[in-house]
Parts: sequence; structure tokens; C-alpha cells
Amino acid sequence: MSRLLTLAGAQMGPTQRADSRAQTLARLVALLEQAAARGAKLVVFPELAFTTFFPRWPMDREAPELLASFETAMPNPQVQPLFDRARELGVGFYIGYAELTPDGHRFNSAITVGPDGQILFKYRKIHLPGSDHVKDGQKYQQLEKMYFEYGDMGFPVARGPEAWGRPVLGMLVCNDRRWPEGWRCLGLQGVELVMVGYNSAAYDPNGGEGESEQLRTFHSILAAQSNAYMNATWAIAVAKAGVEDGAGLIGGSCIVDPNGVVVAQAQTTADEVIVAEIDLDACRQGKEKMFNFAQHRRPQWYGRIVDQVGAEPPA
Amino acid sequence: MSRLLTLAGAQMGPTQRADSRAQTLARLVALLEQAAARGAKLVVFPELAFTTFFPRWPMDREAPELLASFETAMPNPQVQPLFDRARELGVGFYIGYAELTPDGHRFNSAITVGPDGQILFKYRKIHLPGSDHVKDGQKYQQLEKMYFEYGDMGFPVARGPEAWGRPVLGMLVCNDRRWPEGWRCLGLQGVELVMVGYNSAAYDPNGGEGESEQLRTFHSILAAQSNAYMNATWAIAVAKAGVEDGAGLIGGSCIVDPNGVVVAQAQTTADEVIVAEIDLDACRQGKEKMFNFAQHRRPQWYGRIVDQVGAEPPA
Repeated sequence: MSRLLTLAGAQMGPTQRADSRAQTLARLVALLEQAAARGAKLVVFPELAFTTFFPRWPMDREAPELLASFETAMPNPQVQPLFDRARELGVGFYIGYAELTPDGHRFNSAITVGPDGQILFKYRKIHLPGSDHVKDGQKYQQLEKMYFEYGDMGFPVARGPEAWGRPVLGMLVCNDRRWPEGWRCLGLQGVELVMVGYNSAAYDPNGGEGESEQLRTFHSILAAQSNAYMNATWAIAVAKAGVEDGAGLIGGSCIVDPNGVVVAQAQTTADEVIVAEIDLDACRQGKEKMFNFAQHRRPQWYGRIVDQVGAEPPA
Repeated sequence: MSRLLTLAGAQMGPTQRADSRAQTLARLVALLEQAAARGAKLVVFPELAFTTFFPRWPMDREAPELLASFETAMPNPQVQPLFDRARELGVGFYIGYAELTPDGHRFNSAITVGPDGQILFKYRKIHLPGSDHVKDGQKYQQLEKMYFEYGDMGFPVARGPEAWGRPVLGMLVCNDRRWPEGWRCLGLQGVELVMVGYNSAAYDPNGGEGESEQLRTFHSILAAQSNAYMNATWAIAVAKAGVEDGAGLIGGSCIVDPNGVVVAQAQTTADEVIVAEIDLDACRQGKEKMFNFAQHRRPQWYGRIVDQVGAEPPA
């Protein structure tokens, strides 16, 4: 049996702090149209796709520029043209955005929208990296722990529509992809496609030592490959890439099969669409044999994973 | 700072069912001596290193051949020459073996022996693959679930001796390496070196369809790379390889750094020693930043990992 879905990743090049929301929305629509023209029925955009990666800048909590980076409803008039164009094309999408709830909570969120323009489900990023306070003397910050609350929805899944083959869909956001716990919570719900958007530093923008861009890109792809394999699921990870406000972001957007094999990969750090026709039934072999969880998992020995937070080395 | 340890993997070519224990022990000693001659202070041997991979053969529970494949004490006169030679050389080792306890329990176990010849710690394989009964009409079986009980010791760690830089050591056996839960339980104890021995099929010996040998070797290395990276630990995975009793086993023995980068890899499916000088302090960057568990893990959302065994897809 086969359940085929043509899937696209819409990698974005950089979005500068000075870029208007209208400019960025036009790029998103253009990427959507390119993906649709190549047959895609589901398009994955990056994390925080409507703006620059604003957590690099210290701002007051009520600063107009910061508030303007958040969506107070989804959709809303600023993003409606993307929803409209997607519905016209019969294409669904995953997109990451900064969410400000009516009661004042702030999350680094992602939604998946069906081909009918309706939101299928939402996820709020659980593994926030960075700092909860501004670090003195650093031009560039990473303030996700200050600007956002930790996600409060767990790791939900949803069934996609008939037009996609009714796959079990899961979402992660950026740093989540490095944490096998999140993938496993999705795997335990039978996930067949995990979608991830990300903004990941290509180097230390403050000039400190650190891993090379090549190594960081390897890490990003390795996390997608291995967690796809170990959960017998397809995965797609999509970057905002390139030099944004003077700080570099890795590319490396990729589509990975349930064997952990990369079947499509971006070659640039600019706006770039990657496409693959994926067979959702390719998950079955892994789910029924090597990673048949019911047969092989031994949760009575996994207690540390939930009983402790940090590492506790022996004396 | 650096804490340097010269580490070796002693990949074994096949051990045929007809090979005598003395023959196999002589090979183990020869591999140990090669590793020591290249400076190794710690040598990792495969899973079930003293025998052929006997779970491929159906035998009665009390059959003399089966019982002869188990160790009733460790060390014992049959394996003592390996212990003696290692102590003479001042080298420690990890080795996998079939354990029969005084009260009749059977496990697929591994021990780590210090340079003083004393057993540092033991592990009993938790993720047993295969079947708990003989499958009719198959020449080759995979009877680990029939021949062994599930490990009952959890995922222990131990500090190595001063001569090794006092690393936090963990052990896994074969199929365990594909299960991120086991790695994470070690990571949560601050593990700095995970040692794994394995016997993994290169193809379906009964002639069914299945993954290629190349893909299976990729999976084996991918699991070591990614779980080393996500736990900021060194890892070494060592095969028994080649065509054993007509059934093929993959090679691909490797040493992986805390970035998930392979630093040494076997090139054959025969007896072959791989060596690397590893810096245990290279784990620190990952443990203090990207994978600083205390800062970034959110166990309140990981409940499914322990609360359910099998996958539970949505309706």
C-alpha cells in the first residue's frame, strides 16, 4: 500500500529587522506558490516566520516593536493573504509565529493549517533555549526564555485530511528537535510526519568561540535523521537562514524518511523550496518491527526521564 | 583542561558455531594485545563475545550446547586468561556475555573490568529484540526473548579509575543503542563514555526482503552519533561482524565524539582494532550549554514515555 503526499519545505533567507511585514508576507506567498506549482499539498515554513528572529534584541516587555512581532489572533488581517492564497491553491501549511493570547500569555508557537484554510492544531514550543535575562556587554542576545513562556500544551498530534492520506501529524519548534523526549512523545502517538521550523545560529554573533557553521548544520540534520529513524516517522525541518541583522543562521532544511535518510535538502541559505513525494506507509515497517514500541519498550526502567530534570553524576 | 584516554574497539569477525571456546579466547587475547600495543587503556569487545550469536539456533532450554554458551561465574576458568593478560598489560575492557546466575536466571549481560582485573560494574540488556518462541519454517531464528530475561538492573553508571581520568561510564548492549530512553537514563547520570557491543543482522538470513547491509550499517552508526550528541557523551559501538554460520552481521564499529562526529571506524567485517585518544572534557561544552538538562528539560511534559508502552495513534 502507498499513501502518497507531496511535501514541501519553504526555507526562508534572512528577514531583516527593518523589513516590513508586507514584504515578508509577499515572500511567504511567493514560496507557497512555488511549492504549489511543484505539486506540494503541504508546505512547511520556519519558526517565527513573519518577523526577524527578534529574541536577539533586548526590548522592553511593552515596547511597540516587540508587541508588533506577536500575533494576537490567528489568522489576523496581517497574515490573512497567506491563508487566502493557500486555500485558493488547496494547499495546507505549518508556520511558526509569536503568539500573544487574549489573557496576556506569550508563546513561541506553530500551527498547521489544512487545505480548507482552517487551523488543524497548534503547538507551543516546550524546549526554549537562551536566557531569561539580558546579558550585559553582548550586542546579540538570545532571549527566548525572557520573551516566551514554556509551552503548556504538551506534544499534541492531529490527523491530517483525506487529501493528505490522513497522516498522524506532529509539530516541534526549533530547539525541540534536539530533544528526543519530544520526538518520543509524538512517536508514542503514532506520528507519521514531524514538522519543525527553526532559526539556529551559524556561529557566535558576539565573536566568541564555538562550533563551525558546518558542524551546526550537521547537528541539525543529525537530529532530524536520528529521531525520524528511532520513531519510524517522516520528518521535515525548515530553516530561516542566512545573515539576519548581522547574525548568521544555518540553512540545512531537509526532508528525512523513516529510515533517517535525507531525501531532499536545501543547497542555499536563501529563500528556497525543497519538495519530496513521501509515502506515509513507509513508516509501517519500522513501527511494526524494529520500533514496535509495544513489543520492545521497557518503561519501568525509564523513570529518571520524568523523575529528575538535571544530570546527577555519581560522586 | 583535558582528560585523555586512549580507547579501543576490538571488532570481531565471525565466530562459527563449531569454533572452540579456546580458539575464540585466543582471538580475544590477540585483539587485546593489538589494542594495548597501540596505547589503549580500555578495550571494548562485542556483545556475546565468547560464542557465536547462538540465539539464531533453536535449542532446548537445558541443551548442553546452549548451557555451554552461558557463563555461570565471571570470571571463570574458561575466560580467566583474558582477565590475566589484561591485568598484565594494565588494560581494562568491556565485554558482552551470556550470564546464567546461581539461581537460574539468564541475561544478555556486559561487564566493564578495570586495569586491576576487578569488575567495575555489570549491565543486563533491557531492550531484547527478537521472538520469545521458535518461528516455524525459518532456518534462522532470533530467540533473544526466549533465551534471556529482560535486564533487571536499570541503566547503571560507574566512575572509571584514575588511570582513565575517572570518567562516568555507561554500558548498553546491541539493540539498546537504538532506544534513546536508555541513552537518556545514562545522560541523566552525567555519562561521559557509553560502551556498546553488538551483533546486528546484515540482511534477512532467511531470504526475505529487508534493508540493505549498507542501510543497516548507517542505522547503527546514526544511533551512536545522534545519541552521543544529544547526551554530550563519547560513545563506542563494537560489532561482531561478517558471515557467521551462514548469517551475515554488519560491521561499522565506531568511536563517536560528543558532537556526534565519527573519529574512528572499522573498515572490514573481520577482527579489527580501532583506536582513538579521546578527551573526556570534550563533553563539557555540550553538558553546560546546549544539553544543560537542568536548564532546558521539561519532564512535566514527558509523561507518556513512562506512562505507556506501545504507540496509541489518534482515531
